[in-house]
Amino acid sequence: MEIALKRSILIPSNEIYGHISGFYDYGAVGAPLKNRIQQSWRKFFIQRDGLREISTVHIVPEVVLQASGHVGHFGDPIVKCKKCKSQHRADSLVYDKTDVNCEGKPPEEINKLIQEHGIKCPDCEGDLEPVGWFNLMFQTNIGAVAGSNPGYARPETAQGIFLDFMRVFRASGTRLPLGIAQIGKSYRNEISPRQGLVRLREFTQMEIEYFFNPNNPKHERFGEVADYNLRLVTQDSQKSGKKDEVTEISCSGAVEKGIIPNEIMAYYIARTFQFYEAVGIQRQRMRFRHMLPEETPHYSKGNFDLEVETSYGWIETVGIAYRTDYDLSNHAKMSKQDLSVFVEEEKKKLVPHVVEPSMGVDRMLWCILEHCYRDGGGAEKRDWSWFDFPPQIAPFDCAVFPLMKKDGMKEKASELADSLRDEGFNVVFDYSGSIGKRYARQDEIGTPYCMTVDYDTLKDDTVTLRYRNDGQQERVKVSELSSKLRSLARSGRVSL
Amino acid sequence: MEIALKRSILIPSNEIYGHISGFYDYGAVGAPLKNRIQQSWRKFFIQRDGLREISTVHIVPEVVLQASGHVGHFGDPIVKCKKCKSQHRADSLVYDKTDVNCEGKPPEEINKLIQEHGIKCPDCEGDLEPVGWFNLMFQTNIGAVAGSNPGYARPETAQGIFLDFMRVFRASGTRLPLGIAQIGKSYRNEISPRQGLVRLREFTQMEIEYFFNPNNPKHERFGEVADYNLRLVTQDSQKSGKKDEVTEISCSGAVEKGIIPNEIMAYYIARTFQFYEAVGIQRQRMRFRHMLPEETPHYSKGNFDLEVETSYGWIETVGIAYRTDYDLSNHAKMSKQDLSVFVEEEKKKLVPHVVEPSMGVDRMLWCILEHCYRDGGGAEKRDWSWFDFPPQIAPFDCAVFPLMKKDGMKEKASELADSLRDEGFNVVFDYSGSIGKRYARQDEIGTPYCMTVDYDTLKDDTVTLRYRNDGQQERVKVSELSSKLRSLARSGRVSL
Repeated sequence: MEIALKRSILIPSNEIYGHISGFYDYGAVGAPLKNRIQQSWRKFFIQRDGLREISTVHIVPEVVLQASGHVGHFGDPIVKCKKCKSQHRADSLVYDKTDVNCEGKPPEEINKLIQEHGIKCPDCEGDLEPVGWFNLMFQTNIGAVAGSNPGYARPETAQGIFLDFMRVFRASGTRLPLGIAQIGKSYRNEISPRQGLVRLREFTQMEIEYFFNPNNPKHERFGEVADYNLRLVTQDSQKSGKKDEVTEISCSGAVEKGIIPNEIMAYYIARTFQFYEAVGIQRQRMRFRHMLPEETPHYSKGNFDLEVETSYGWIETVGIAYRTDYDLSNHAKMSKQDLSVFVEEEKKKLVPHVVEPSMGVDRMLWCILEHCYRDGGGAEKRDWSWFDFPPQIAPFDCAVFPLMKKDGMKEKASELADSLRDEGFNVVFDYSGSIGKRYARQDEIGTPYCMTVDYDTLKDDTVTLRYRNDGQQERVKVSELSSKLRSLARSGRVSL
Repeated sequence: MEIALKRSILIPSNEIYGHISGFYDYGAVGAPLKNRIQQSWRKFFIQRDGLREISTVHIVPEVVLQASGHVGHFGDPIVKCKKCKSQHRADSLVYDKTDVNCEGKPPEEINKLIQEHGIKCPDCEGDLEPVGWFNLMFQTNIGAVAGSNPGYARPETAQGIFLDFMRVFRASGTRLPLGIAQIGKSYRNEISPRQGLVRLREFTQMEIEYFFNPNNPKHERFGEVADYNLRLVTQDSQKSGKKDEVTEISCSGAVEKGIIPNEIMAYYIARTFQFYEAVGIQRQRMRFRHMLPEETPHYSKGNFDLEVETSYGWIETVGIAYRTDYDLSNHAKMSKQDLSVFVEEEKKKLVPHVVEPSMGVDRMLWCILEHCYRDGGGAEKRDWSWFDFPPQIAPFDCAVFPLMKKDGMKEKASELADSLRDEGFNVVFDYSGSIGKRYARQDEIGTPYCMTVDYDTLKDDTVTLRYRNDGQQERVKVSELSSKLRSLARSGRVSL
């Protein structure tokens, strides 16, 4: 976190007035990094597979979130200290003291555990009031008449997709399967957010709702991932107490053995793995955990969470859920609209089923920071630490330096920076300090390539191209730089 | 609007439960169009000029908006009907009946006008209560203790930039000028929103705060726009009653004559014009209006609004304001933090001045829809209407069709679509209906190029490339398609 703040990746929101936990801004390095991650996701999941992307509003009226169950059920158990009046998540207090997981337990049961174990206020050791329930949504009011039309900052991007499903279906040839995606902010009024980017009150989701005929849960590109090896923590492993045991199994194997319920789920599990590898997450430090039935909602036909190892331990960063027809059916009932579609093969109407891959950009970005961080020691032997971001997500494509400011080198370098910008590259132009310091500054923010304009450039129109990862240098013709950069960007670990 | 809904550009939010005015979703065609506009803006204004982009939170605590003046002053005069209890914007009612502009007038004065002109409730002709004041921000509460920590959905993206200014300044070489930009949602709880995308309760802004030394208001790229001809509505024209009179004057001329206060303002006015031309707005239907002193806040040293002619009349879509040191100084005072910076040339500390170009994506997109719409009549002679979007902002780069599904043409076309997607293009793949219908569908959503795989393709690896604008066709080698598409995209009206 210290490094992220120093290098303008993150900025504590409202810092000059006192930072409020759970809110982070993205700085001048973090914002382009986040944009690049989102743009890569868009290409990888949406454009390549021909899915449809939409963008729905952030403030939604109460009726929508009643239908989705959020008004009634989206909350956390909360306790207040009788003495100091501070408030805490009741389940976290119990877990910290007893290791008992209270997820999904009603307040009364958690209360019983607090009594049994004599749990006190963590701030002042005072007695606690009975456990209550706190809805995690930010509430507001739409329109001028106070309280007349309650609305909420959306707790997930998914509901907007369900509401717009029928319009998108009609505009997309009225055929299943149909994948609809959305990238955008969601909001949760966490009681006591901790762990920096891992638990935010405001965060960005990238969600897909993949609508399909439940009688035909095939994916036309399944063949492309059939042999891909997954790293799974199976339900069997977990039931026998080995909750860290990873099973390596091919996609097709997992479907054949019934570990993964269908091809669509398996496709997205594999593609998520591939995407995470492509953006710089170390394969050995991630795994998909098959959630146990008691951890998933009653309507689910299977949930898989991608867990990534970080300094906070293994954290959940993606959920892929087979939500059946639960959401569409509920909205159909509450809105009294017909949300079923006609299926050509079977000549009948049905409510599509849905597989939902849901990713959090902020947690993903945090994992990338941790997995791409290089401390400069060991074989690298540098006096500074750096980030080994894949070129496609690096905040800046390249940097251009004049060796010195004099003799027209600065002007030449500035010209080169501009012409690369015209070609669409995001370029840093830097002329302050020694070349060594400028290299270090770019390494520190993960810029993969630096180009230096020197005396030779003025003669033969070549520049020194320096590679971030190994410090190697070569001379390249100015006229060949843009195609060189493009082909380098394409030669990443896994193609994005 | 009818066309925008039909072609999945816009979707009325929460439509299945009843649309609430002021909220629109972007559909499967609108979302990529909006993304492309934003990405073009990012390249044009941020990356090309080496500005810094950040991304700050949407929910902000009250203290921030007290300092900015929004808690006290960001509202509209409101009247309630005594009879039917409906609420209305008082200034709009007066303007509709009397043509008197009440902007900035206190409620008492507006009340007087309502009395004088006997204005009644527009819904039921009932009597109106006295004019009150309604704050336009969506209010909520941060954290679990109700009312303890009021927060608001931000009414503009600008304040986040001011709060983070010092951190970005320190991470960017501590030099002025420094331009910081942000793209993101803002929220205004409009009393009675009308006019589709023009007045939204939730909208997207693209804002730049350009911080500079007030003693040196130069822009290093001013030379590039010095000869560019602006279309201005000057204060002089307006004062002499000619509020539609456009003066054509070069950028340097406007600065020399003191019409535009400095080079930085002039640079952004010119670049905004150029950007609007590049995204498809007709030059003759836009103009920059120099706001009169009584229309601008007391601290402003000049405001220019870009107005575009639409079916709603001339609407304001961009504001470029010279806000001096007002915002930073206020935040410094309220937060008790030093927000002044050391200026090398003068060897002293000062609070930077700021020029703020602020654009609304939604209105811009609406103007693009209107200006790029072609009804298919006249010289074009088509049976369908279409959108003449510039290739860089078109929702989809191209479409690929098999002439027929049989004889391997569908597979070949699908392969071609995938390979173009791998190259980063956003491709439609469509095999339903006649080729003519498929051309029409793509014209309707503004896809600039269609490629058809036919029997010849199987023999000689060429496809038919059809141009949206003139319907012309040519044969192109499959291997040359991606470079062809790239060079076509670069040959737009104005380079993006």
